[in-house]
Amino acid sequence: MADLIVSALHASLTDRALNSMNFLNEISHHYPDAISLAAGRPTEEFFDLDDVPRYLALFAEHLRAKGLDEAAVRRTILQYGRTKGIIHELVARNLAIDEGIQVDPEAIVVTAGCQEAMLLTLRALRADATDVLLAISPAYVGITGAARLVDLPVLPVPDVDELLAVVKAARADGLRPRGFYVMPDFANPSGLSMDLPTRHRLLELAAAEDLLLLEDNPYGLFPADGVDRLPTLKALDTERRVVYLGSFAKTGLPGARVGYVVADQTVDTGGLFADQLSKLKSMVTVNTSPIAQAVIGGKLLDCDFSLTAANQREREIYAGNLRALTDGLAARFPGGEVTWTVPSGGFFVVVTVPFVVDDALLTKSAQEYGVLWTPMSHFYDTDAPINALRLSCSAVTADQIKAALNRLAALISDQLVL
Amino acid sequence: MADLIVSALHASLTDRALNSMNFLNEISHHYPDAISLAAGRPTEEFFDLDDVPRYLALFAEHLRAKGLDEAAVRRTILQYGRTKGIIHELVARNLAIDEGIQVDPEAIVVTAGCQEAMLLTLRALRADATDVLLAISPAYVGITGAARLVDLPVLPVPDVDELLAVVKAARADGLRPRGFYVMPDFANPSGLSMDLPTRHRLLELAAAEDLLLLEDNPYGLFPADGVDRLPTLKALDTERRVVYLGSFAKTGLPGARVGYVVADQTVDTGGLFADQLSKLKSMVTVNTSPIAQAVIGGKLLDCDFSLTAANQREREIYAGNLRALTDGLAARFPGGEVTWTVPSGGFFVVVTVPFVVDDALLTKSAQEYGVLWTPMSHFYDTDAPINALRLSCSAVTADQIKAALNRLAALISDQLVL
Repeated sequence: MADLIVSALHASLTDRALNSMNFLNEISHHYPDAISLAAGRPTEEFFDLDDVPRYLALFAEHLRAKGLDEAAVRRTILQYGRTKGIIHELVARNLAIDEGIQVDPEAIVVTAGCQEAMLLTLRALRADATDVLLAISPAYVGITGAARLVDLPVLPVPDVDELLAVVKAARADGLRPRGFYVMPDFANPSGLSMDLPTRHRLLELAAAEDLLLLEDNPYGLFPADGVDRLPTLKALDTERRVVYLGSFAKTGLPGARVGYVVADQTVDTGGLFADQLSKLKSMVTVNTSPIAQAVIGGKLLDCDFSLTAANQREREIYAGNLRALTDGLAARFPGGEVTWTVPSGGFFVVVTVPFVVDDALLTKSAQEYGVLWTPMSHFYDTDAPINALRLSCSAVTADQIKAALNRLAALISDQLVL
Repeated sequence: MADLIVSALHASLTDRALNSMNFLNEISHHYPDAISLAAGRPTEEFFDLDDVPRYLALFAEHLRAKGLDEAAVRRTILQYGRTKGIIHELVARNLAIDEGIQVDPEAIVVTAGCQEAMLLTLRALRADATDVLLAISPAYVGITGAARLVDLPVLPVPDVDELLAVVKAARADGLRPRGFYVMPDFANPSGLSMDLPTRHRLLELAAAEDLLLLEDNPYGLFPADGVDRLPTLKALDTERRVVYLGSFAKTGLPGARVGYVVADQTVDTGGLFADQLSKLKSMVTVNTSPIAQAVIGGKLLDCDFSLTAANQREREIYAGNLRALTDGLAARFPGGEVTWTVPSGGFFVVVTVPFVVDDALLTKSAQEYGVLWTPMSHFYDTDAPINALRLSCSAVTADQIKAALNRLAALISDQLVL
């Protein structure tokens, strides 16, 4: 007999959101020889183990330049530390330079990856059973999963145009929308971006409806060739309507697991929303590893706070791969039966096909065709069949993209014949 | 008008457990010149920044010795990684050597500090509103805080002798005790340890009542001089009744923020409880920073998996400080009005006085007497007045202990006169 019965554990453990992540991880382990257009991890081309001690040394030097003696430098990097983090001032300078976001460093909580930033934000906002989160749909699995962990239902919003209707319907049902989660730049999984008028309209709507916007921006620094970046919602936010969720996984170093949240909202009992999130963080991870923070801090110092500059080579790789992906799709599917998005940046292309794309098809694709991708059904919080799949181009070479597309084309044409 | 109203946020934010941590942090920042017998952090005497690259290099070498090529070594340390961690095999070897615990590495989840291990475990166990956690009382604030974050009420258990009565009363009230949290070795805050017969009795009770034991062991490696360590509950556990919560903050390096949980319980849907915790972890921190894990992994390799050996100097410091603390109390309070525990190890001594010890008294102590300590009231989940305070001896010198005790004696004698 088993020691524990899963049905007596928290409901999230049997939820599709959490098992989806698991399934996708397992299949890539199970078919290591398949070419993966599934993985959204950053390119490893420029990884260098020597960067770690170099960044640590730069950060230590920065502390010395600020006047800390050797004991204080050691303590800052090696001891328990400030709950809100030790690189908040460096992150604020990075936001000013790369994003035009001006923010009080005290409004920043440095987190154990952006995932913890999401969890803290949703935990704070979920007070009772009438609370709901609105999220752009399809949505990143991590936000749905974090919502599950705090028992916060997610209402899908297909489009900013439909936001008001969803808010009104929720309120009519006695529900309290606590925030609207969006990824305005090169979104995961859709690849889509919001145009500037939509951004302004969304901020106006948020003000009119007293809604908090949760802006997630892991891919903003990676526009396609010739594309000008648009200002983030947070850069346009004059009324503290936006909680900004930041990641260094794609622009810094994934192995540091350092992210952050900008929460400059005032609270009635004093201080900032960031201080409330900090109280929660002290019960989740206590503080983000200062060694890991020092690595990211050193990288920020190394690039004079411009991760745009530091990621020039990476941006070119991603832009080239994105072009290879969409050009390759165009060359292989001239008929119109298969369509796809042409994103203005980021890692992801969504391919729509005239048949249902599910986990069984992915398993078949891995096993018989040697190519991995992600069924779009994983990004919808419903059991409805979905005719689309997500391709990622961040962790592959141009040659791998070519071979993978050939295999995908074979799979699709075999499916079309069936 | 404030942007957010705290009363509309999660209830934990106004809870004493979370605000306690905050208050204690703030007061130590506010009175930086006061001597602190409050801080439970490890000694900084042997901190060395050069250890970080040295440990990283040792871990990289270990990966090469396992047959990984350079790209795989870089990927393991710098890329996103396995949710359950990359040093699980090293942790298992450490547990075998230091604790006599034999465990399948697959049953280990490496976490962003032991705090995340607690949160994951409580999140998994809290399924509905009838669930409660039993915890030894007084208890570490972190377990109470983590319970608050998952809306899990905590029932205090003053003593193993009273466990059965608390379990029965809870069940009679329609509640479902999901686990019993204990720190059998040199506990925070009580300083007390369970004797061997009590450990055996507790395991028998757990089997008879079908209870999970959550064993937290951050201080086990630090017995007082001449004290023999007792086996942990997990080492005595033949029926997988114990979830073991591990920390490297005191024995490894606090700045790495690496802990772990051993969850070898089987579950009815297959796999181990660790695999369920891993699913939750993917929505809390995705994975523990592999850079931070590599630092701890390198330290484990460096000491041939014996943190007991690696912490010989630290153990001597703590044992000496503990003696200085209890001897110093004996010299200053011969009368019997003031009493204290004489722990067989760890960082903490509890002093009982004939007056109420609250935050106001702590503030007075900091301001007028220049000494910090922790009111024991912070470790009880109740508003009842408590006549005791906790002294910590881990982050001070013998001279600081002397001066701090003089100041504390002045405070206490002034209070006795009042």
